[in-house]
Amino acid sequence: MSGFLSVVGLGPGNPHTLTPEAAAALDNADALYGYGPYLDRVPPKPGQTRHASDNREEGSRAAAALRHAALGAKVALVSGGDPGVFAMAAAVCEQIDGGEAAWRSLDVSVVPGVTAMLAVAARVGAPLGHDFCAMSLSDNLKPWELIERRLAAAAGAGFVIALYNPISRARPWQLGKAFELLRWHLPPSTPVIFGRAIGRPDEKVAVGPLDAVDPSAADMATLIIVGSALTRVVERPGLAPLVYTPRPAHDRARRQHPAPCRR
Amino acid sequence: MSGFLSVVGLGPGNPHTLTPEAAAALDNADALYGYGPYLDRVPPKPGQTRHASDNREEGSRAAAALRHAALGAKVALVSGGDPGVFAMAAAVCEQIDGGEAAWRSLDVSVVPGVTAMLAVAARVGAPLGHDFCAMSLSDNLKPWELIERRLAAAAGAGFVIALYNPISRARPWQLGKAFELLRWHLPPSTPVIFGRAIGRPDEKVAVGPLDAVDPSAADMATLIIVGSALTRVVERPGLAPLVYTPRPAHDRARRQHPAPCRR
Repeated sequence: MSGFLSVVGLGPGNPHTLTPEAAAALDNADALYGYGPYLDRVPPKPGQTRHASDNREEGSRAAAALRHAALGAKVALVSGGDPGVFAMAAAVCEQIDGGEAAWRSLDVSVVPGVTAMLAVAARVGAPLGHDFCAMSLSDNLKPWELIERRLAAAAGAGFVIALYNPISRARPWQLGKAFELLRWHLPPSTPVIFGRAIGRPDEKVAVGPLDAVDPSAADMATLIIVGSALTRVVERPGLAPLVYTPRPAHDRARRQHPAPCRR
Repeated sequence: MSGFLSVVGLGPGNPHTLTPEAAAALDNADALYGYGPYLDRVPPKPGQTRHASDNREEGSRAAAALRHAALGAKVALVSGGDPGVFAMAAAVCEQIDGGEAAWRSLDVSVVPGVTAMLAVAARVGAPLGHDFCAMSLSDNLKPWELIERRLAAAAGAGFVIALYNPISRARPWQLGKAFELLRWHLPPSTPVIFGRAIGRPDEKVAVGPLDAVDPSAADMATLIIVGSALTRVVERPGLAPLVYTPRPAHDRARRQHPAPCRR
């Protein structure tokens, strides 16, 4: 079989953050698949076909790209950020795992990219400077109860938390509920960062304390970073404040909260 | 003040994964600072000075770079992977927070990069395809007890776990102890990935089950990904297996383990 599928990370959306490896994979493709607005970021190339699909059609988009590659085409499936972080790489693996036997023989590669939390973190300093976790706040594919349990576990253990997919028209209350829960575990002054469209003309970054955070300031494309109890804000004259989580850590969370169960 | 400091992520080490933004920041610098082996990855440029330092001198390296920039120089401080993930960005912020007042007026920027866990994940499929966390296993700057508590919290709540700084000559037993602890929380067949030097000539990637994992196969430069109970391995004829964590998740951990304390 001569066809192949590359799952390509576009990074945060500015061409200056697209790796040469990703640019080459896009250039090398006969056909591009992806969510429309991500495809729009790729400059047109004569002879290359484009297959745009809607936001929530990851499974069928992955299957279509695999089917096309299995016919012998060089196919690139584009992802915002990094394909492995709440994006298309898992959807492709799911399809290979459960789909046509021939797809298991296909040459499939994943080209990594700068994921949103790294781009947002870089803009404000180093909020992910110590142990952190990344969670999707979408309860489309997992129960909300599990999301709550993970938020509590992460905040209680002192992880900084990056939240992907924080809000959408179909999920209007979840982000507010998540902040409510996090306020039980973290000091009111814990820095929270909202970042979107990093490096693009409509870039927006805001930093504020957990007790004053406004969920309605987020949209689907916002990446939120909630600091740990150790995350600090450094004010700077005439410049935006720096937000960072120091590398040295002590067990502050244990002193503030009840000890976990022992078996 | 005309000088500035860019903290630049080199990505996993292959020039094809260096973003154009990072390449431009390196090219634009009068002086480069960094850990020797990372500096060696940057092609020499006439007129540009180089200031290499040892691995564990992050604080003094950051201070030296800031001091140089405060004199009016264009300084780039290089980091492997992404500067914000267990790398130099936090060290720079710490120095600004606690150092000379003039450093707060300096133009400091962070240029993100592809961090090791994204590069390793891309090589095997999509093991970070669902909620995950990233931890440094080094107990140089935090107590080992806190690391154990975080490992238990993360595994117990169903996060995939990426381990940075897994082992060193000065920290020989910690990784084995971590696997021992994780075996209490995760099925014996949980996939574990060891990856190092992705995209470089000495690249090495291995996948095996948690119950057969050998800590001595890791070194300082290895990035380890420990799956969740839902992470799957897809065997493929004539190809390396795919490892991925499906996007749909259920609360398997809750069924396997005692419920957490309620206040």
